[in-house]
Amino acid sequence: MDGTQMPAAAAALAARYGAGAEPKAGPWNETLALLLSHRSVRGFRPDAPPAGTLEALIAAAQSAATSSNLQTWSAVSVNDPATRRELATIAGNQKHIEQCPIFLVFLADVSRNGRLAAEAGAELAGMPYLESFLVAAIDAALAAQNAVVAAESLGLSTVYIGALRNDVTRVAELLRLPPGAAPVFGLCVGYPLPGREGEVKPRLPQAAVLHHEAYDADDAAHRAAYDPRMAEFSRRNEMADQTWSQRVIARLGTMKALSGRDRLKEKLVALGFPLR
Amino acid sequence: MDGTQMPAAAAALAARYGAGAEPKAGPWNETLALLLSHRSVRGFRPDAPPAGTLEALIAAAQSAATSSNLQTWSAVSVNDPATRRELATIAGNQKHIEQCPIFLVFLADVSRNGRLAAEAGAELAGMPYLESFLVAAIDAALAAQNAVVAAESLGLSTVYIGALRNDVTRVAELLRLPPGAAPVFGLCVGYPLPGREGEVKPRLPQAAVLHHEAYDADDAAHRAAYDPRMAEFSRRNEMADQTWSQRVIARLGTMKALSGRDRLKEKLVALGFPLR
Repeated sequence: MDGTQMPAAAAALAARYGAGAEPKAGPWNETLALLLSHRSVRGFRPDAPPAGTLEALIAAAQSAATSSNLQTWSAVSVNDPATRRELATIAGNQKHIEQCPIFLVFLADVSRNGRLAAEAGAELAGMPYLESFLVAAIDAALAAQNAVVAAESLGLSTVYIGALRNDVTRVAELLRLPPGAAPVFGLCVGYPLPGREGEVKPRLPQAAVLHHEAYDADDAAHRAAYDPRMAEFSRRNEMADQTWSQRVIARLGTMKALSGRDRLKEKLVALGFPLR
Repeated sequence: MDGTQMPAAAAALAARYGAGAEPKAGPWNETLALLLSHRSVRGFRPDAPPAGTLEALIAAAQSAATSSNLQTWSAVSVNDPATRRELATIAGNQKHIEQCPIFLVFLADVSRNGRLAAEAGAELAGMPYLESFLVAAIDAALAAQNAVVAAESLGLSTVYIGALRNDVTRVAELLRLPPGAAPVFGLCVGYPLPGREGEVKPRLPQAAVLHHEAYDADDAAHRAAYDPRMAEFSRRNEMADQTWSQRVIARLGTMKALSGRDRLKEKLVALGFPLR
């Protein structure tokens, strides 16, 4: 850390937490600058990144930690326009799924481990548990986040598409997934359309999410400080005027907002995850 | 990408996939080099990183995408030696949990959203589903992976501790978690002990995890190519001689290897995740 870097660190932290709410700047480098500048982008130029980009993103993804080296995830790259269109529809008409030059569906995938056991004539007694699905979903998330960091380091932007979980059954059919593989989320990758790069979104004060020794649930003041900050962000960027609390209640308050994900459990069971 | 960078890219890819099994080098930069060089480390020097490091890691973690900005994760930093000792015991006597200067427990945490709804007198009908737990676990994983990348960019090493899930009930008691918060994994951060930096672990051929348009389950040849590569790695690094297939079967083949995680579901329900 040297003095000339401090203004960049302080500015990045102020953008992420809101001016006055940021932690004191500490160690800093180009990687931290990259990570703190993340914005999800929902409008993409059609032009493809250089040859080899997809493979570089997957190499980064495979370099993430994976529980016991089980490597219980896969990704499907989808380019077919009809498939893209149907995935966009499943995700509540997110047009960027059709626009972006690279679209990946990340899978929780224990089917590969299943195939090797079948080949060896072994049974995997530990497989049918919620634990296996959770390991696979976490593996997929760690891998995907490495792909996101890699993409952003190459000047690309991304957005996760959790709404593929609105109908994992249909996504699995479209991608012809074997039993033991299930979509956990999609990922759009591409260059942002001009004006769609977005603004760094403020997050909760650090004291609300980082606890010391034991959990501190006394966080009303942190939420009260954050609510108007998100309302301002929402006014500037979304022509709305909602606090964080209002958004959370809108997102989780109704069954309708779940868009069918209340049936996720039974659909995962049908896709070969007994979730015992 | 310029010519002088190609040897570094090719060398990093060869280390990650095994010489001859790597994809062709494409775009390359320092961030990709950092990501591809990841190794999990299980022996740490006791010396603390510079002041502000923990806060920088959490700022990176909070900068990761989070589903609908719900921010359904938290982290507990644990320094108390007695708590560290018990966490190490729960995790099957992983001594590095006691050694490392920074130890974080990442939580799937919908309790904060629950508190704001309670304050507003709102009900969160969408909360009691498996979907909410999955969103929270994925949020925690994306955040943690950003913390890992940030740590490695600062010359620190890390290892995830999934084995905290051996007993989430006891971990929750130790950290005094409120209902709606559950440990998903731990993370050790610190400088590696000399000689414990480890070697980049080879992963499955890219063609085994990256599918195009639809899933290709015809992967026996990829596994056959990878098995001896992991056996060699295991000979060099672990004084063992196990193929990947043998390791997967050892890890998932018995109930004993689950170390109690077959009861994860009922324990999560008791911690306030109905998992409907």
